[in-house]
Amino acid sequence: MIYDRIALIGLGLIAGSIGLRVRADGLAGEVVGTARSAATRDTALSRGLCDRVTATAAEAVQDADLVILCVPVGAMSAVAAEIGPHLKPGATVTDVGSVKRAVIDAVGPHLGDDVHFIPAHPLAGTEHSGPEAGFPELFENRWFLLTPQSEDTAAIDRLTRLWQALGANVDAMEADHHDLVVAVTSHAPHLIAYTMVGVADDLRRVTDSEVIKYSAGGFRDFTRIAASDPVMWRDVFLNNKDATLEILGRFTEELFALQRAIRTGDGDMLHEYFTRTRAIRRGIIEAGQDTAAADFGRGAPK
Amino acid sequence: MIYDRIALIGLGLIAGSIGLRVRADGLAGEVVGTARSAATRDTALSRGLCDRVTATAAEAVQDADLVILCVPVGAMSAVAAEIGPHLKPGATVTDVGSVKRAVIDAVGPHLGDDVHFIPAHPLAGTEHSGPEAGFPELFENRWFLLTPQSEDTAAIDRLTRLWQALGANVDAMEADHHDLVVAVTSHAPHLIAYTMVGVADDLRRVTDSEVIKYSAGGFRDFTRIAASDPVMWRDVFLNNKDATLEILGRFTEELFALQRAIRTGDGDMLHEYFTRTRAIRRGIIEAGQDTAAADFGRGAPK
Repeated sequence: MIYDRIALIGLGLIAGSIGLRVRADGLAGEVVGTARSAATRDTALSRGLCDRVTATAAEAVQDADLVILCVPVGAMSAVAAEIGPHLKPGATVTDVGSVKRAVIDAVGPHLGDDVHFIPAHPLAGTEHSGPEAGFPELFENRWFLLTPQSEDTAAIDRLTRLWQALGANVDAMEADHHDLVVAVTSHAPHLIAYTMVGVADDLRRVTDSEVIKYSAGGFRDFTRIAASDPVMWRDVFLNNKDATLEILGRFTEELFALQRAIRTGDGDMLHEYFTRTRAIRRGIIEAGQDTAAADFGRGAPK
Repeated sequence: MIYDRIALIGLGLIAGSIGLRVRADGLAGEVVGTARSAATRDTALSRGLCDRVTATAAEAVQDADLVILCVPVGAMSAVAAEIGPHLKPGATVTDVGSVKRAVIDAVGPHLGDDVHFIPAHPLAGTEHSGPEAGFPELFENRWFLLTPQSEDTAAIDRLTRLWQALGANVDAMEADHHDLVVAVTSHAPHLIAYTMVGVADDLRRVTDSEVIKYSAGGFRDFTRIAASDPVMWRDVFLNNKDATLEILGRFTEELFALQRAIRTGDGDMLHEYFTRTRAIRRGIIEAGQDTAAADFGRGAPK
């Protein structure tokens, strides 16, 4: 047991996966959960994401020694304002938001000096969302990135032990650096996937049914990413604006260079480029961050 | 048995998958294969992709009643020129190239009037390539698109039966329409994925190791597509230039609109857009073209 009482604020994919694993492995004495919607709270209870639910966040954090904010980034400020006065002295507050600078600015001012604030970002998820989506293996071999605002190494070590007990690896870094790294590895790819799927949807000459029917040539991979939770991703882009726009600017520049190579028939440039990108995939597989199986091992759909 | 003798010209992922399935299910009396490299021919024989190999394409097509061109699109013209004089009268020639207009222009002039030319494009593949990459289930529930240049319905029906015996569905369409459809569902997504991976590789402030380590947030999906065969894809873009550039132009326009929404903080526009794209994914799953399992069902990497 690492904490006596953990409070989950928000009960979607990430909170659900944390709750299931914490309860299965006995990592906390009690898991208390809350969500704005009564239906979500009911589902969370029936799936066993937490031991009990409360109607408000203020109630949920009573006597909790760890509070995990699992709401969209845009909702962090209001939640922090609500729970701030009710936190137990000495408690740790963390979150699972995909951007860190904006969360620090939104949450930090609402927390007292007697609370340890250790923002975190698990690099894990699926295209599914809501209280039905979580599963206890979600964090296996994934990374949790911490951007600690607390100087208390005991509190940081304790939270690190929890994330490791979920199966994850843990790194710490500065918040702005975090936001740039994930702009490259997550935010820009998501916006690009959303865009390509939107373009395909718009095309009237190519009917929707053809786009769907013939999607196996690569497009269907993009649709998985573009099926992610709309509220979460709206908030990510609005709250990591500068880094995302910077990476998209570089992307557009590079795309124009490749378009020009196609237009002018520069086969050598294309071949050299495509050979270089192939090597990145090998690095990711060697780092244990993806499967080496062809086509993600998904095989023939039934 | 649908054909007496099938000749596979080129012995990579697609040819290998055809050969393995044809031989396993006895769909032809004999499968003859050829490839430029002796090492490829040896691997093909040892994996049982064909019954025998020949050193030249001209030899391979001797007495074949079906010839399948499985070389990169840029190599089609030279191969057609080589085999043209050696084809058996009444034989069918097909191919598996990802563009159809350019292949028709490259191959058609080399074929006699006594040959049935039925270009085809299987919407199937993986990021792996070469004679080791094929497997007999590759075409299960995938589409073969035909752009027939022969008026002989018996020849078309016979070839359709072969593709169906591989587990595939078959549609016919006009070549230019084909090239536009696949520009949307395959060619533009591939170029975009190559570009995003190239951008990540270039970034010096974000080291390569960070990009690789933290790739699970979405980026790793792009690297799978961007690991596809460089020669094949160079030829695809050079030979479907107009349709690809047109779709990329629309993509850029749309990307700029989303970037502006991020810059101006237009959350409603982003939310509406992301909600719409989510529906496309559902359509693809309902059409049996992808798995509904979270994260392609790949689970936690070992």
